[in-house]
Amino acid sequence: MSAPDITLTSDFGLRDGYVAAMRAAILGILPDASIVDISHDVPPQDVARGAFIVGTTCPRFPEGTVHVAVVDPSVGTERRPVLLAAGGHVYVAPDNGLLTYILAAHGAGGDPQRRGRESGFGEPTRLPVPGVCSAYLLNRDAYWLAPVTRTFHGRDIFAPVAAHIASGVRPDDAGEPVDTLTYLNLLHPVREAHAIHGRVIYVDGFGNLVTNLPAREMEETRVVVEIAGQRICGLSDSYAAGGGLLAIAGSHGYLEIALTNGSAARHLRAAVGTSVAVATTG
Amino acid sequence: MSAPDITLTSDFGLRDGYVAAMRAAILGILPDASIVDISHDVPPQDVARGAFIVGTTCPRFPEGTVHVAVVDPSVGTERRPVLLAAGGHVYVAPDNGLLTYILAAHGAGGDPQRRGRESGFGEPTRLPVPGVCSAYLLNRDAYWLAPVTRTFHGRDIFAPVAAHIASGVRPDDAGEPVDTLTYLNLLHPVREAHAIHGRVIYVDGFGNLVTNLPAREMEETRVVVEIAGQRICGLSDSYAAGGGLLAIAGSHGYLEIALTNGSAARHLRAAVGTSVAVATTG
Amino acid sequence: MSAPDITLTSDFGLRDGYVAAMRAAILGILPDASIVDISHDVPPQDVARGAFIVGTTCPRFPEGTVHVAVVDPSVGTERRPVLLAAGGHVYVAPDNGLLTYILAAHGAGGDPQRRGRESGFGEPTRLPVPGVCSAYLLNRDAYWLAPVTRTFHGRDIFAPVAAHIASGVRPDDAGEPVDTLTYLNLLHPVREAHAIHGRVIYVDGFGNLVTNLPAREMEETRVVVEIAGQRICGLSDSYAAGGGLLAIAGSHGYLEIALTNGSAARHLRAAVGTSVAVATTG
Repeated sequence: MSAPDITLTSDFGLRDGYVAAMRAAILGILPDASIVDISHDVPPQDVARGAFIVGTTCPRFPEGTVHVAVVDPSVGTERRPVLLAAGGHVYVAPDNGLLTYILAAHGAGGDPQRRGRESGFGEPTRLPVPGVCSAYLLNRDAYWLAPVTRTFHGRDIFAPVAAHIASGVRPDDAGEPVDTLTYLNLLHPVREAHAIHGRVIYVDGFGNLVTNLPAREMEETRVVVEIAGQRICGLSDSYAAGGGLLAIAGSHGYLEIALTNGSAARHLRAAVGTSVAVATTG
Repeated sequence: MSAPDITLTSDFGLRDGYVAAMRAAILGILPDASIVDISHDVPPQDVARGAFIVGTTCPRFPEGTVHVAVVDPSVGTERRPVLLAAGGHVYVAPDNGLLTYILAAHGAGGDPQRRGRESGFGEPTRLPVPGVCSAYLLNRDAYWLAPVTRTFHGRDIFAPVAAHIASGVRPDDAGEPVDTLTYLNLLHPVREAHAIHGRVIYVDGFGNLVTNLPAREMEETRVVVEIAGQRICGLSDSYAAGGGLLAIAGSHGYLEIALTNGSAARHLRAAVGTSVAVATTG
Repeated sequence: MSAPDITLTSDFGLRDGYVAAMRAAILGILPDASIVDISHDVPPQDVARGAFIVGTTCPRFPEGTVHVAVVDPSVGTERRPVLLAAGGHVYVAPDNGLLTYILAAHGAGGDPQRRGRESGFGEPTRLPVPGVCSAYLLNRDAYWLAPVTRTFHGRDIFAPVAAHIASGVRPDDAGEPVDTLTYLNLLHPVREAHAIHGRVIYVDGFGNLVTNLPAREMEETRVVVEIAGQRICGLSDSYAAGGGLLAIAGSHGYLEIALTNGSAARHLRAAVGTSVAVATTG
């Protein structure tokens, strides 16, 4: 029985040796580790974007996988290094909102209607850890590299802890339980009788705009999408279908706005946070 | 005996989680899969460029390797998902020309002289699958992820099929035979008594211009290369040799045009499709 | 007992199939090779930058690891392909300065005070191989791919030799001993009674300026850093601490200059070679 995979997500890019230093730290603890890159091209310090990538990708890996996520603008401050066990996976990350979508998938985020109407889109708050998950403050330095630097906890804390967990160390050996974790207020659309109001939560590398509107709620109905002053009638079957701006059920399960052979983000000057409304006439 | 390697080529970039989602799909089917990246930085929707990378790189891997190639602007339309078995390797890809160089290496492309003179450089046509290869339409959804989305067949069809093939599923279990595949009209130079006329077929990341003129045909002779209004006399031994524009036998086996410490593509304003002529005086 | 890891560092980028061709060459010799990427985004032909990445990252891997480094503007000329055994690791590279930091860590570089005052920052010179290391000219083509091209020794010489070494071939089988290797004059700061004078030796992807001043010499003292006409008083505890320009003990062990939420390199118009002075008042 081989050790579980370890995935890596970061904003380190691949121009420097930072990602390789994390790999070296893991291989020093678990020589046969199977290390899988998610992405290292999260824009520098863009925690919300990192959170989306972690949330939509990591749970697709086999159960037991250990995930390291490091987008960490506050490294060296009092922000906490944490471990989250959720849905059969283990996540090791700074407690800055990077695990928002994982927490939400297990019930965090409170009353959707209420939260969606709040101002403060994207702002971090501390929320209770859902009962089906468990979370730990990483404070056992026996599982860290020595000495720990002030600037690179990815190499010195997160990667080594993940390697130890993949080697069989139990989460409650690596830290002590915590009841709350940081969460970004990004997620919940607001439903009215014949409309849903949401936001762009992610812009992918092709310029496709991913919204927070679940695609399954609209596939069977006739919809009109409004975004950035434009109207799109109906859903398309493929990115190539339209010859222009189109709405489509995206691969993440959300409604996406795309432009055939182009970037919808540039075309609409839209970004994370841009409002989107869908009128439904079931 | 371990499973064969699985390689991945795409235009997904590494900014998003798309490549990782393909890896997760493979590992869910074949937990010990050995996954090797070819490139994910094919320019978006540039099938011809993806075809060159697949054609010059994939056959260098050990026999039995399974290759996934996804540059797929028409995902969700009627373009066919296919499998090609050729030269001891297996290729899984959309049928849009991405396997052009693999097919050509096994004899597809008809009469070189005739085709090279045709107009329509780079245009797709359907050609018979060479007799030494076999091709299949992927239509057995037992080997796909469920549900299949309209926008991401890399994750939902191509990667899972590759994982099943690497696990021992036979190509004729995964689909039904087809006789033709799509081919891009890119390949054949035109030979005259004392000259060869060709095209730039690839521009690499250094700005080197790779032509479709086989280098071995000119190494022993005195040559004069004409491209973009410039003349280059003789072949150089190294990229550092010239101090300017130079012609050299490139690592792909084709004649290349390069600029010492610079980009020949920018210097000559040349691109894929630019004509190149070589006068030979044996 | 599995074969040691093989790491890859290059300036090939991942847009083309060059890195994959090196992987294919390795897997053809050692089918179960564990290949780890350090970075392939070294700027084209920037040997000094590649040397820093190799020097700060490779030695962190487990002992026995075989490292391939290819930033090779002079491929095809008389520059030598070499192997260096140092500190329990094996390095395979062109002899152009790419192993400077590895050599320096084992004692190369002569009298620090004298060298630091010399002009010619960054210039290559030939220096004796430190006695604790051993170096070889790679001249046994039995361990190369055939035929060797003039333009891609990464695929044809360096990767295959590394795979043979990882398979158990002894360094002295792969080549013959050499006494000197090429070294870049980058390394030694100049110490005065109450000041240290150094240089920026690396700019990372975040724009942080890594100097050649060892951080441990200043952590306990009150320091004033001067760079590009700016003064920074004292060391910070985190990149987020300052709200502006700051100095910090970086993860490489050197003093770094950073800008909170920005690029110090752009802000100061600083680059590799920029002078930095630290006044210490113990």
